[in-house]
Amino acid sequence: MATQVNPPRGMRDFLPAEKARREGILSVIRDSYRAHGFDEIETPVVEDSARLHSGLGGDNEKLAFAVMKRGITVDDLREASDPLVLADLGLRFDLTVPLARFYASHRPELPTVFRAIQIAPVWRAERPQKGRYRQFVQCDIDIIGEAGPMAEIELITATVATLQALGLTGFTVRVNDRRILLSALASLGFDPADNDSVLITVDKLDKVGVDGVIAELRSKGITEAAVSQLENLLRRPAERLPFGEAGIRAVTPDGVDTAAVESLVAIGDAVAGVIGEGVIEFDPWLVRGMGYYTGTIFEIAHPDLGYSLGGGGRYDGMIGRFLGTDVPAAGFSLGFERFVDLVDLPAGSRADAVALLYEADASPAHLAALQSALVAQGLRVRLERKPRNVAPLLAGLAASGFSRIATVRADSTPDSLEFRPLE
Amino acid sequence: MATQVNPPRGMRDFLPAEKARREGILSVIRDSYRAHGFDEIETPVVEDSARLHSGLGGDNEKLAFAVMKRGITVDDLREASDPLVLADLGLRFDLTVPLARFYASHRPELPTVFRAIQIAPVWRAERPQKGRYRQFVQCDIDIIGEAGPMAEIELITATVATLQALGLTGFTVRVNDRRILLSALASLGFDPADNDSVLITVDKLDKVGVDGVIAELRSKGITEAAVSQLENLLRRPAERLPFGEAGIRAVTPDGVDTAAVESLVAIGDAVAGVIGEGVIEFDPWLVRGMGYYTGTIFEIAHPDLGYSLGGGGRYDGMIGRFLGTDVPAAGFSLGFERFVDLVDLPAGSRADAVALLYEADASPAHLAALQSALVAQGLRVRLERKPRNVAPLLAGLAASGFSRIATVRADSTPDSLEFRPLE
Repeated sequence: MATQVNPPRGMRDFLPAEKARREGILSVIRDSYRAHGFDEIETPVVEDSARLHSGLGGDNEKLAFAVMKRGITVDDLREASDPLVLADLGLRFDLTVPLARFYASHRPELPTVFRAIQIAPVWRAERPQKGRYRQFVQCDIDIIGEAGPMAEIELITATVATLQALGLTGFTVRVNDRRILLSALASLGFDPADNDSVLITVDKLDKVGVDGVIAELRSKGITEAAVSQLENLLRRPAERLPFGEAGIRAVTPDGVDTAAVESLVAIGDAVAGVIGEGVIEFDPWLVRGMGYYTGTIFEIAHPDLGYSLGGGGRYDGMIGRFLGTDVPAAGFSLGFERFVDLVDLPAGSRADAVALLYEADASPAHLAALQSALVAQGLRVRLERKPRNVAPLLAGLAASGFSRIATVRADSTPDSLEFRPLE
Repeated sequence: MATQVNPPRGMRDFLPAEKARREGILSVIRDSYRAHGFDEIETPVVEDSARLHSGLGGDNEKLAFAVMKRGITVDDLREASDPLVLADLGLRFDLTVPLARFYASHRPELPTVFRAIQIAPVWRAERPQKGRYRQFVQCDIDIIGEAGPMAEIELITATVATLQALGLTGFTVRVNDRRILLSALASLGFDPADNDSVLITVDKLDKVGVDGVIAELRSKGITEAAVSQLENLLRRPAERLPFGEAGIRAVTPDGVDTAAVESLVAIGDAVAGVIGEGVIEFDPWLVRGMGYYTGTIFEIAHPDLGYSLGGGGRYDGMIGRFLGTDVPAAGFSLGFERFVDLVDLPAGSRADAVALLYEADASPAHLAALQSALVAQGLRVRLERKPRNVAPLLAGLAASGFSRIATVRADSTPDSLEFRPLE
């Protein structure tokens, strides 16, 4: 009986060519992050439900796939007050909550300043749509234990160098600081009680423009004087300024947090010194959704794309939630699926791939010995029985990266095989 | 508030050293399988529940972690006749069921004879115990579309070459054929209706010995004449014989399936020709649990271990369950966790790893520029702020594979840094 054979809704299979392409790109990312001093770790794909739903994951918590407890009975169903009490585990929706749990569990075994790489899938039960999947890969780097701007500098330079190693160009890193954002709102006269609501609206600036933001704030009944002041600021010429204190002061209200400005200046100087001016920009209205950010926040924008390639920031309070003592931390997450299609790595050098074509009456022992001898010489060797129509086979081999083919005869030796080019 | 910080029960975190070791070994496995002409694919970690519970997974189906449907209400709980109707997905418990589904979904895009690599985690809700985990990695190769013994020959030679590439020695590949097993039971006079029960008992031969097997068969009330005949056969000297028809005939009853014997002889000849005599053995009482095997079955035994390192066989009926038309298939699965601790790969050549030690007042821009310049030279570069007590830091760096360290001074350039060896 034939059954439904597609992968689960919103998830994907990867065929050989795409799998090889993805792994090649991930390998460049891994090598680049390692070169910048980070170390890869791995955690299980599931975490305890209580941990996933501790409030640290923001809206993503609602998108977690829940794993049912084993051995549940019908009586358990009748007695359960809430479906979630039947689930003790959940698929992770990001790599940050698991990292915080990992660090709390293993702190004594880790260096004082711990630089982690996580390249792994996460799962979110979102409505599937173009470019948005229910299983997708994130590439995160995090630095735990470093309170100063060196953490952000290392994260941003490593991430930019990685995107450059992939041949990506034209992107910019927008940087802001939550403390600037909050002190700016206070300076403009917003009621701190409205901050969350105001930031949700300001976060839409790229999508709805100044008119949209101001209209939405007014519709929310936010203090009119503050909204007008914000409007004046937003309607100034939108030219992005280079980093530096003068640049930052020019586009923010008086009275923004001085420590945050100094930190941003240090970050901007150091990063621009490595990757050049123009790639990194100060964006006073960058918000980023996650509630756990406490300082610097950043995001990678690409002119060809309507969404960011990745982002991150400082989240000093989070590890403490698991550890019971505060530890400074910052991270940068690349949304792999968001740029994988933009990357076109050169094929590079790989072992020469050859195919051996054999007749149905060939000796299996002879074929196995030939393959083994050629593999020992460093070749990739595919054995193929000659089909009635050989053309599709040859086309398929060429498309799969096989470069040469030889026909096996009864007396063929590894040295006597006559290879001819494919294609 | 500090919370429970261990990974979920029966699952593991991997710290940098162990993660690097595991990835290094997986990379050797992947490269070796690719060299033998196989192509890597990937499927989602979950499959539809109906597919996971279609009877193809044998006892493992009971161990599947179930993923709850989204949006379940308390009313749904009250009305559900069975907890499993609340789950629409499940974590895969092996890589064979997903492969069959994958092949059925993508057949037109795949070569006529498709050689797949899958290196990926699977999940089983088993009682955790030493060496048995709830998330663990399997390394599978499968050949779909090849009915003849070349499939088994390619699978076994590629697997043996892979274990050898990992430096493993002393293992043997035991081979049998389900058709030999069933025809042997018939020849000995067993009632075919008892076959499943008899095979479950015979499968325990390694653990309980001949006495145990015979006693269990008698306790089950199996036809006494057949049990006595089997006992005679099992009590013959247990010397394993080389492959070859005479060897096979010598340890099996008269009347075993001739086609199966011929197939085994061809497989034994070809494999022994490549890997030498002694590594591959005929084992007339090898059973392997999975009900879906239809022909050759094999298993890797290691004298130091009480369990097999991997196994597989031919499962010609399975793909048809999803596709509606029969397709021959065979596969070999390595239980990665079962041998990973036996492997001791040489560290090999990797990028030179250096650390730069800096004082708290160092310029971030200077540090970032130094790191970037050294990374561009091909080094792996870790930046470390000098702690009060430097000894633990140096020891940790040496243990993590960093070979040299230099202290950054205000006027250091990439060329003027004075590196000294670590350890």
